Amino acid sequence: MGELRKDYILDRYVIIATERAKRPDQFKSEAKQNKEEVCYFCPSNEHMTPVEIGRFPEFSNDWQIRVFPNKFPAVRPEGKADIQTDNTFYTYSDAFGYHEVIVETPNHEESLADLNEVTIANVIYMFNSRIEENLKKPDVKYATVFKNHGEKAGTSIIHSHCQLITLNKIPENVLEKEKAIKKYDFCPYCSIIQNERNSYRRCFENSSFVSFTPYASRFPFEVWVFPQRHILKLSEFTKAEYMDLAIILKKILLKLKALNADYNMLIQYGITNMHFHIEICPRLSTWAGFELSSGTIINTMTPENAAEFYRN
Amino acid sequence: MGELRKDYILDRYVIIATERAKRPDQFKSEAKQNKEEVCYFCPSNEHMTPVEIGRFPEFSNDWQIRVFPNKFPAVRPEGKADIQTDNTFYTYSDAFGYHEVIVETPNHEESLADLNEVTIANVIYMFNSRIEENLKKPDVKYATVFKNHGEKAGTSIIHSHCQLITLNKIPENVLEKEKAIKKYDFCPYCSIIQNERNSYRRCFENSSFVSFTPYASRFPFEVWVFPQRHILKLSEFTKAEYMDLAIILKKILLKLKALNADYNMLIQYGITNMHFHIEICPRLSTWAGFELSSGTIINTMTPENAAEFYRN
Repeated sequence: MGELRKDYILDRYVIIATERAKRPDQFKSEAKQNKEEVCYFCPSNEHMTPVEIGRFPEFSNDWQIRVFPNKFPAVRPEGKADIQTDNTFYTYSDAFGYHEVIVETPNHEESLADLNEVTIANVIYMFNSRIEENLKKPDVKYATVFKNHGEKAGTSIIHSHCQLITLNKIPENVLEKEKAIKKYDFCPYCSIIQNERNSYRRCFENSSFVSFTPYASRFPFEVWVFPQRHILKLSEFTKAEYMDLAIILKKILLKLKALNADYNMLIQYGITNMHFHIEICPRLSTWAGFELSSGTIINTMTPENAAEFYRN
Repeated sequence: MGELRKDYILDRYVIIATERAKRPDQFKSEAKQNKEEVCYFCPSNEHMTPVEIGRFPEFSNDWQIRVFPNKFPAVRPEGKADIQTDNTFYTYSDAFGYHEVIVETPNHEESLADLNEVTIANVIYMFNSRIEENLKKPDVKYATVFKNHGEKAGTSIIHSHCQLITLNKIPENVLEKEKAIKKYDFCPYCSIIQNERNSYRRCFENSSFVSFTPYASRFPFEVWVFPQRHILKLSEFTKAEYMDLAIILKKILLKLKALNADYNMLIQYGITNMHFHIEICPRLSTWAGFELSSGTIINTMTPENAAEFYRN
């Protein structure tokens, strides 16, 4: 029997349709071949990218992480950032903002899952630097950090990288979560973490982080990672917390690598009181007409089975 | 210069990123090959489907349209339809409902675009019959009707068909639209239609219907079709209106066929005062980490260019 489930706090529903279920190995995708001829994310092709913004280590010739503006940006720091409304129904601004690429490794063949934990921690620390620096700029209201891994997750560039896009507004998904949080006189995520670490949806845990498959998972193998402390932003992380997060992320990503699963990784932080977290969304299924029409999502895998896959 | 645009009435934003634009012919997909060995949507395989619900013409051996329950349903008319909440954060019911398949043609090779206008009108009339009949059933709060055309739109079955899924709740997207409509003391869509038929986003128009590419299009070539009258439901359509809708749909779908574009077609009606409409969403791009994280959508084609493609 399938189940209809609501997100913990959002008005977002999912149908867990076990009748349509596949076994985990049936989700396994074919390994992709590299299509690019010249990779401008690779060392010695640095001249092919827009002017570098930063690198790690900072004063090195041999960088491990490198940041530069996206050559084909979705937003640009040009034009008018003020959002205005004409004739009641036409609300717009220029697509104002900054769009950065964060290359995670000089090695063209390595994915984020292959990096050692210290390097992964450094990548996350770079997210923090880039978010903080961008939030200081005029007309930047928010900086979204995410990773697209593989074609089904929206990238055709093999060389492992994340992206940052700033907006001249707070994203709707952030506003929606913050509005839902405000309905409680405590942090709902602090309670949810305590419930889930004692449930069949628990995946990995260490002294500062917990990961679990969310009760109303939207994607097969969707998994969330939360700090145990009520931390709001990466800038509050201790050095140990960066490492603990990296350790859990590597475990998750190695499991997804075994499936050749394309995935999106979403860094989730708010503007007032949202508990920081990361959502990892494997892209093994397609949202079709039903999802687009209703807003309710059909997922063919139970989060309980997905958690078992991660733990074993 | 790209543009950030908001949906007419919803808090849904889109970035029109012309910097990343492709020409229409670059969106063209490869034609698909039929993969199935035996098609159980074909005539003489009727015994392979669950028990038939209806057909058109009603008392014919040679049907043109055939309706039966989905063999792999997302929802079933079993279990408890009441939605309940346990321990604050766990809201659920059984996945209760009815899931039907509406085969639009006996011909395995034909797509909806290939049918003549009278047959398309009959398909839409069948939507009406199935919606009305399902809404009478206990614990059915809404019936979502949609079409998935092609693999990128979420179907691997070639034989042309639509689907109906009922839910034991009003879908969130419907509630969101109705809430937005209530902010006006007039029908916002009636005004939008009048604006858009005089804009560069106008596509096709006849005496009872208007089609246009929406101002904040989420998909390249997204197009909406509205009755000119303030009609709420298919059951209010006149015979002439069914035909006029079929004529416009065929024009749109033939243009998409020329691109080999997979698409979703969404039948949109409300529960109180929403102006009936149809949304056609070609699936030529992928929502990636940015869209999932922020809720803001990047679209690489302007709706004005898309409308030109439809008109020419």
